[in-house]
Amino acid sequence: MVNEQAYALGTKRSCIRELFEYGRMRAAIVGADKVYDYSLGNPSIPAPKEVNETIAALLQDTDSLALHGYTSAVGDLATRQAIADDLNARYDAGVNAADLFITCGAAPGLCAVFGALAVPGGEILAIAPYFPEYRPFVESAGLTFKAVTPDVPDFQIRLDALAEAITENTQAIIVNSPNNPAGTVYSRQTLTALGALLTEKSKEFGHPIYIISDEPYRELAYDGTEVPFIPTIYKNTIVCYSYSKSLSLPGERIGYVYVPQQADDAKALLPAVAGAARSMGHVCAPSMWQKLIARCTHLRPDLESYDINRRTLYEGLVKAGYRVAKPDGAFYLFVEAPGGDAKAFSEKAKEKDLLIVPGDDFGCPGYFRLCYCVSLRQITESLPLFAELI
Amino acid sequence: MVNEQAYALGTKRSCIRELFEYGRMRAAIVGADKVYDYSLGNPSIPAPKEVNETIAALLQDTDSLALHGYTSAVGDLATRQAIADDLNARYDAGVNAADLFITCGAAPGLCAVFGALAVPGGEILAIAPYFPEYRPFVESAGLTFKAVTPDVPDFQIRLDALAEAITENTQAIIVNSPNNPAGTVYSRQTLTALGALLTEKSKEFGHPIYIISDEPYRELAYDGTEVPFIPTIYKNTIVCYSYSKSLSLPGERIGYVYVPQQADDAKALLPAVAGAARSMGHVCAPSMWQKLIARCTHLRPDLESYDINRRTLYEGLVKAGYRVAKPDGAFYLFVEAPGGDAKAFSEKAKEKDLLIVPGDDFGCPGYFRLCYCVSLRQITESLPLFAELI
Repeated sequence: MVNEQAYALGTKRSCIRELFEYGRMRAAIVGADKVYDYSLGNPSIPAPKEVNETIAALLQDTDSLALHGYTSAVGDLATRQAIADDLNARYDAGVNAADLFITCGAAPGLCAVFGALAVPGGEILAIAPYFPEYRPFVESAGLTFKAVTPDVPDFQIRLDALAEAITENTQAIIVNSPNNPAGTVYSRQTLTALGALLTEKSKEFGHPIYIISDEPYRELAYDGTEVPFIPTIYKNTIVCYSYSKSLSLPGERIGYVYVPQQADDAKALLPAVAGAARSMGHVCAPSMWQKLIARCTHLRPDLESYDINRRTLYEGLVKAGYRVAKPDGAFYLFVEAPGGDAKAFSEKAKEKDLLIVPGDDFGCPGYFRLCYCVSLRQITESLPLFAELI
Repeated sequence: MVNEQAYALGTKRSCIRELFEYGRMRAAIVGADKVYDYSLGNPSIPAPKEVNETIAALLQDTDSLALHGYTSAVGDLATRQAIADDLNARYDAGVNAADLFITCGAAPGLCAVFGALAVPGGEILAIAPYFPEYRPFVESAGLTFKAVTPDVPDFQIRLDALAEAITENTQAIIVNSPNNPAGTVYSRQTLTALGALLTEKSKEFGHPIYIISDEPYRELAYDGTEVPFIPTIYKNTIVCYSYSKSLSLPGERIGYVYVPQQADDAKALLPAVAGAARSMGHVCAPSMWQKLIARCTHLRPDLESYDINRRTLYEGLVKAGYRVAKPDGAFYLFVEAPGGDAKAFSEKAKEKDLLIVPGDDFGCPGYFRLCYCVSLRQITESLPLFAELI
């Protein structure tokens, strides 16, 4: 007498979690320093020191009832204003505090957006490779999930494949740039062409086709690579942001949804996002973290150690003969599996206690993902193992 | 092209929120001290001082990556163990850490439980008067919400009405004691009789009928009134708890779901709760607050100021001629509306800037709710107004 889908979601671990648990088991046997775990995208740089300093300040200068009390469901005005100001300073984006809804991280934000867009027969497209949780989020909202063929080997967007996939039922396309798992950043050129295609298709089908921009990695770009703010390119863009990676606060669950007021249906969309969140038990995002964001939203992560990891691993792999997607953002490398079978290759690697995630669950078989939010030691010690495996 | 139910939930404010917003508007005109707002159940005693002290300690003694990082979806083991130990010390309840799922407060915990119990045609019963949000939570999970006639004027449970309401489709009964809005506590006698009825009905229909015990007010009981721990009375009880009121942390979103391992189907239920939570974007409960609970779960609120408010308001109202339900718990009084029409009475009170919530949305017309988590000054100054109104 329990819900079957919920039971299945609660028992079927993701491939990533399984590898991670296997790694912990192996670490207990052979020692943690002998397990080279590239499975989990858990930030390895600490939060900026201003974060803990700001918490200490809030404890001193803010009344307990205000600090820990309910905020409105949409979030504290000061927090929303600070986010709007920061986005406007960086992107001249015309964001208003009233366009923002503060969430417990990007995941419930995405779920609320899917819930808001859940109309009978509605479809959501994701561009492969994509974050595997999109599928259960979309399907639980009662929508159909469809993957769009990856643009190999550059991992931009195959507009021809996307154009073919869009139907009159398409409600939105999920865009995730910098990308998990590919580590690529969609260029302004790609996004402009995407916007043009969606404008055309929206006209053809007589309703807006939204971009849902899932942006937990927005601040993680290297070598000066531009990460365009998509609402300034295509007005029907809903942004789901999280401070998990930018401030290294993944466990604290704080982020936001932004619905531009110039978006078609904005007046219906934002209340629908709030209503969908309410139906899932959203009361407010954690109050103290909201107050922290009001003071810290301008902080940017210190990417130096990720960047050293990125270069070391990328250059080592290329030297060993691997083909790797251009690693411009996030903290992932996406690598072509020698022999073409990523699952088999992952199993072979596992024998050397090298834990890598095959791309199948990301909608991109034949590749594997490496999370380089690890120690530099792990990278330098494991590169010879990668060389042996090829 | 947005979801209609989500839009409706996002635009239709609750009667409580509307009153509260009206009060803020009036405060701007006549002054905050001239508005007697009894609308919102927002704790008015600050968090115990150990809470902020523990945060300060955590900032000092816990590594940033561990403090702010992802925990497992079910929650930190240390947190779950501390909660289990505390429950076992108080109730000899046989709780295991593995039976607990840490949530972002009681609301998403309830939603996850409803999601886990969502089978085709399934029904959830709530005993009037009940917290109005139960209805959208239940209906959004795809279940049918049914209210059971209130037990006037004692606000225990009318077992005859409940027995009649239970069908083969009944999945669970929501129990909320201490009760919002009635302020009553279900006695051990009531709960034992309820357990016996549900045991009989479960046998009759060939499947367990669960109690979902929504317990944000568990620690808020006065005059030594016992608040029985329901799983020790009826094994098929799922507990949804929150620290919002017990530690005055309503904005911080921390609580748990407890599924006793002796419950029928426990092996399916707990994963289904986790899966339902996952489908709504639950990643983990806020990490630092989990670590705080590991150290602070034994703390109890200092109820003195609530108790003074309770006595002052209760005695004042009774003296003025009002009939009030026995005010044993939570921070609510439930009062019979003179004349019988609570909406009309609430409008009359509004003319005196006295904001009281009619019981209609709680499934109990003819009564109104007063939240006495306010200043004592508000109570003493508003009692003469109540006397004028009767």
